[in-house]
Amino acid sequence: MINAAICTIGDEILIGQIVDTNSAYISRELNRDGVRVTTKISIGDNFDDILKTLRICINENDLVVVTGGLGPTKDDITKKALSVLTNSQSFYYHDEQLEFIIMICSKRGLEVSDLNRDQALVPNNCIVIPNKMGTAPGMVFEIGEESKKLLVSLPGVPYEMEGMMPSVNDLISKKLSPGYIHHKTVVTYGIAEASLAKMLEAFEDNLDNDVKLAYLPNPSIGIRLRLSIYNRERESSIEIVERYLSELKSILGSLVYGEGEDTLETLIINTLKSKGKRLAIAESCTGGTIMSRLVSIPGSSEIISGGVITYSNESKINLLKVRSETLEKFGAVSRECAEEMAIGVKELYNADYAIATTGIAGPGGGTDFKPVGSVWVSAAGNFGVDSSYKVFTGDRTRNITRFSSEALNFLRIKII
Amino acid sequence: MINAAICTIGDEILIGQIVDTNSAYISRELNRDGVRVTTKISIGDNFDDILKTLRICINENDLVVVTGGLGPTKDDITKKALSVLTNSQSFYYHDEQLEFIIMICSKRGLEVSDLNRDQALVPNNCIVIPNKMGTAPGMVFEIGEESKKLLVSLPGVPYEMEGMMPSVNDLISKKLSPGYIHHKTVVTYGIAEASLAKMLEAFEDNLDNDVKLAYLPNPSIGIRLRLSIYNRERESSIEIVERYLSELKSILGSLVYGEGEDTLETLIINTLKSKGKRLAIAESCTGGTIMSRLVSIPGSSEIISGGVITYSNESKINLLKVRSETLEKFGAVSRECAEEMAIGVKELYNADYAIATTGIAGPGGGTDFKPVGSVWVSAAGNFGVDSSYKVFTGDRTRNITRFSSEALNFLRIKII
Repeated sequence: MINAAICTIGDEILIGQIVDTNSAYISRELNRDGVRVTTKISIGDNFDDILKTLRICINENDLVVVTGGLGPTKDDITKKALSVLTNSQSFYYHDEQLEFIIMICSKRGLEVSDLNRDQALVPNNCIVIPNKMGTAPGMVFEIGEESKKLLVSLPGVPYEMEGMMPSVNDLISKKLSPGYIHHKTVVTYGIAEASLAKMLEAFEDNLDNDVKLAYLPNPSIGIRLRLSIYNRERESSIEIVERYLSELKSILGSLVYGEGEDTLETLIINTLKSKGKRLAIAESCTGGTIMSRLVSIPGSSEIISGGVITYSNESKINLLKVRSETLEKFGAVSRECAEEMAIGVKELYNADYAIATTGIAGPGGGTDFKPVGSVWVSAAGNFGVDSSYKVFTGDRTRNITRFSSEALNFLRIKII
Repeated sequence: MINAAICTIGDEILIGQIVDTNSAYISRELNRDGVRVTTKISIGDNFDDILKTLRICINENDLVVVTGGLGPTKDDITKKALSVLTNSQSFYYHDEQLEFIIMICSKRGLEVSDLNRDQALVPNNCIVIPNKMGTAPGMVFEIGEESKKLLVSLPGVPYEMEGMMPSVNDLISKKLSPGYIHHKTVVTYGIAEASLAKMLEAFEDNLDNDVKLAYLPNPSIGIRLRLSIYNRERESSIEIVERYLSELKSILGSLVYGEGEDTLETLIINTLKSKGKRLAIAESCTGGTIMSRLVSIPGSSEIISGGVITYSNESKINLLKVRSETLEKFGAVSRECAEEMAIGVKELYNADYAIATTGIAGPGGGTDFKPVGSVWVSAAGNFGVDSSYKVFTGDRTRNITRFSSEALNFLRIKII
């Protein structure tokens, strides 16, 4: 089993000004290749800390992937620490990277500064991974006894790092020949973690020793359940996990809506695509969040007719033909209004299905009768129109996420 | 100076199935209190790893904050490791937490299982921080020589952890009396990192030794520049940073649009609020993202008239009164279409200002003439109507984010 550490560098991580998303991405890439990540560690832009931490990480692991600390600005000192750690003798300008730097500067109409040029400067003792999306190249050092360990340095900008991972994966499988980890995930929506755990108590007690079940709650996705099996042959891993998986599904029934990277968004898009149907959305409290969640998926334009964000009563009446009597009698946050919104937006865009939301995301606007966190979601389609009322207890952002998930899940149940 | 380590626990972090956002939040909270975070480390749900890592962290720091590993499910073993590490003698049921668990189960109509009940079980040697948003309480252990160090354990669910941080902050200032770190940030939009660094080269060379400048690029916000000063008296820290800050602003001019946590969204909302004006938005390629970014800010409803998401030519014509000749002659991704969309949505919602986007987010749909990543953004208002064309080179999600930032920034320049 190949063990790896991921090390992310930058004061901005330690003071919490950015959230480190790189290490999650790198973990997924390494895992798929059969590398087990044992530790993730974040440290500041400090030469001594970088050197000390990288030394410990490479001692305890076969592979260390470092991101960050390679930018053109003065807070970046990783390259120096790497060259000391690996006893580099000299630096040279990497031709291909330098040409690329000059090319992108000219494309953007910028002068090539020394700062830019020095991005192409690399230690003599590394394998260079050219950066085709930015200026700082990746560097791979073979170190340790018989040079059997790999120390990989990548830029901290996520899409630059991501563009270089295929080359890193190639080097890992060539030089480290890693073992096999098999994961499989199912996705549930509409049940709390403790209730799920209760349903799965006997199932968990009967799992083999090298099989693990983990619960991963997420307000947009629901709770994902991950089965992992370590260190067995590829074929028997797959077989065992599949057996447990079908057991899991038969226990949970319709609470399970997908596998792996499935989300409510992808499920709805794929279902509507296969039916050749189109969706329209009317959002009040969710203010475009449902639509932007769907639109973030490539190909979503095929199933989306259009949407409106109608905050005011006036726009609900004018655009969606909600009746003013409905608003007077029941208020904007009501089953009646939600259903008229759904029917209205379906007609406005001449769509096959529609969803609508109206609720109170907070922090202001709640009453005893209609508290912050309450929402009506409606769906309209060949089944007519139907609605659901829920109350959540998060802050504004969390409530908006939950409201939009609730609407997507409500539609899911109606169309599958 | 009080040094701290943050330790996040969970296999789901190591295999990359979730992004750790907790540690960024905790860092910000600790920093504000004058605690310097030296390291963040993530490890799996493994008893030995947890014990070993916590031992090292508490040896090297005055404070260790641990999140995760406290859920009701079987992959959670942190509590056991904490009790071994701190030599707990026994466990007991914490009354207040148990009552709360029973209360929320009954509110949700659930039976109280043993798994739920055992969440209230705590070691005898800790200070308990009740969890008012969930079932697992926080625990604070005083350990080390003369019990002068703090080991804090909090749940991994972000909003539960966040709800407990004020109590943690109180304990830190009472028991550790931390020193002072002063940070201040300005926010820029519309310039690349290397160009910024070039503009600021002389400024950086002249900074005092204990003052640091960091560059924090973000596709929605722009580049934030953070000035930090360590270990001085509060008053002189503030004075020195303010002096540097005003120098920075005079170098960068209108590239700077805000300070601290300002974003394009908050700037626009505050500007329109102070003018008493309202905004309408027509989104094609950004599919609701601009609107959802604005709506995520509390109070945004005051300045938003409404929005439409018009993917199809048909809906551009019917709802926004874009002329079919415009679409035939120039296509949907054109200055002409973007401007008619902006004017159209402004009239549709009877708003004071409007923005519109039309472009190609990818991965499909690009041509030589209108490549993936190209976008027209338009703004309409008392200044008439105006537009800007940009080409970006990211993936779909990144392009949508950039497009929406570009639109918000274009409006910003028109209204400030």
